[in-house]
Amino acid sequence: MFELSTYLKEKRRMIENALDRHLPTEETRPGVLHAAMRYSVFSGGKRLRPILCLAAADAVKGREEDALLPAIALEVLHTYTLVHDDLPSMDDDAVRRGQPTTHIQFGEATAILAGDALLTLAFEWLGQCRAPAPYLPGQYVHEVAEAAGSRGVIAGQIEDLAAETGDTTPERLDFIHLHKTAALIRAAMRVGAIAGGASAEQLDAVSVYGCNIGIAFQIADDLLDETGTTERMGKPAGSDRKNKKLTYVSCYGLEQSRKRAETLVDEAIAALSLFKGPTAPLEAIARYVIDRDH
Amino acid sequence: MFELSTYLKEKRRMIENALDRHLPTEETRPGVLHAAMRYSVFSGGKRLRPILCLAAADAVKGREEDALLPAIALEVLHTYTLVHDDLPSMDDDAVRRGQPTTHIQFGEATAILAGDALLTLAFEWLGQCRAPAPYLPGQYVHEVAEAAGSRGVIAGQIEDLAAETGDTTPERLDFIHLHKTAALIRAAMRVGAIAGGASAEQLDAVSVYGCNIGIAFQIADDLLDETGTTERMGKPAGSDRKNKKLTYVSCYGLEQSRKRAETLVDEAIAALSLFKGPTAPLEAIARYVIDRDH
Repeated sequence: MFELSTYLKEKRRMIENALDRHLPTEETRPGVLHAAMRYSVFSGGKRLRPILCLAAADAVKGREEDALLPAIALEVLHTYTLVHDDLPSMDDDAVRRGQPTTHIQFGEATAILAGDALLTLAFEWLGQCRAPAPYLPGQYVHEVAEAAGSRGVIAGQIEDLAAETGDTTPERLDFIHLHKTAALIRAAMRVGAIAGGASAEQLDAVSVYGCNIGIAFQIADDLLDETGTTERMGKPAGSDRKNKKLTYVSCYGLEQSRKRAETLVDEAIAALSLFKGPTAPLEAIARYVIDRDH
Repeated sequence: MFELSTYLKEKRRMIENALDRHLPTEETRPGVLHAAMRYSVFSGGKRLRPILCLAAADAVKGREEDALLPAIALEVLHTYTLVHDDLPSMDDDAVRRGQPTTHIQFGEATAILAGDALLTLAFEWLGQCRAPAPYLPGQYVHEVAEAAGSRGVIAGQIEDLAAETGDTTPERLDFIHLHKTAALIRAAMRVGAIAGGASAEQLDAVSVYGCNIGIAFQIADDLLDETGTTERMGKPAGSDRKNKKLTYVSCYGLEQSRKRAETLVDEAIAALSLFKGPTAPLEAIARYVIDRDH
């Protein structure tokens, strides 16, 4: 019987150990910069993207070890997006995961630069890995740069900021989260599958899975903001409604949002039928994404 | 007889054409993001880094075309550093090259994200190039990530900001500019030389050249700030002294700074003796770096 909480705990430890080994310490000059980078990375995330990356390698019968460095690259890249999103000129958030955000703790200039440095470090690590044939050696860099760039995560963030004042159509809502959230989760799946030697068909299947649970994850976030407690989430509940944010709940209501998330998860799980390695973790994670309470 | 101004004009055109071809246009959603990226890139820089990259490939008897995509990647990466350095929480500059800085023109959030997107795009392009054997395929990404990251350009920027309030020793001044300016110029030379198939010995020589003219470039900047005119430079003259910045002029005085720059340039030119391809451009650029009036 597969036990998700044990699995997540074990993978999280593996990922955090690898992050600790690879991230420069405060001993490296400039100490304050490396302290801010570590503070941002070790503030207690779920490590969803790197875990998915490892699980994808496993599902195609590849070796998890081959996906470990790309996996932690994805996590530091994800961390940079959070650090920059929290800045005063963006979402202006003072608290994340129950702790002061990086710019509150270290000042705005250091937070911007720590984010820049984490983004750069992600590519340094990705550049050190070579994707197996028939993929190009630079395939990891390509996948992640495309997902994270001006036609990916950053496109989503720009449209998210614009939605605060501009039009709030369902079409824009989908654009935002396909780019801001789903693109990087999809890339995590693809990079892991490539590291594991996936076929083209399997790569398509992990893309569907990643895209679907990316959107489902965001719907669940919107639902939690509406129905969760501040204590459990480590950030103020109900802030989306207060800030009149464009969310799945504001667009479709609670009930329809929930159904939409469930359908996406069902489709994600159906896409796993192609794999010959263990898929229990990916199945369980897909369910967890919409059942979690924080 | 080698004519530097003709050479620079021709290379600048080649680089700007390539940038124009490769940068997404405003037609690509989100239009405002791509407009901000293009505004930042096409605000009239000297294109020193990409020109050095091409000249380095040429000097080792390689083909300039092989260095073109890495060269423009270095330019968009350099542009990102300028966009972020100009932000209110950093140097808080409203004007660069005679034009409003990106955050003045597009707002702070868009400027931060345009910078992030340019950095990501640089790695997307570098990841598309494969360094020739015996270099690793991912060598370009590695060289540039190391030069631009938390132990490179960003380390220099953090120490530069800290120098506004902290200690102002010559040791810190050197640390700042070896990292903030010289690291990326050195990387531009190395990447061009690698693209051209340089030997290990030649790679060492271009590193010396790049490092030396990087520092000489910064000394010249400090001298220009002290002695130049606002009109010629497109930014307020005398601002370093006004802001009590740590500069070569504040550390060593005008005369000693000038001598130091000349020695560095002489050493840079001496390092060129190893090359079999044309070195006239690199010689002339080394001299130009300290003789320019803007």
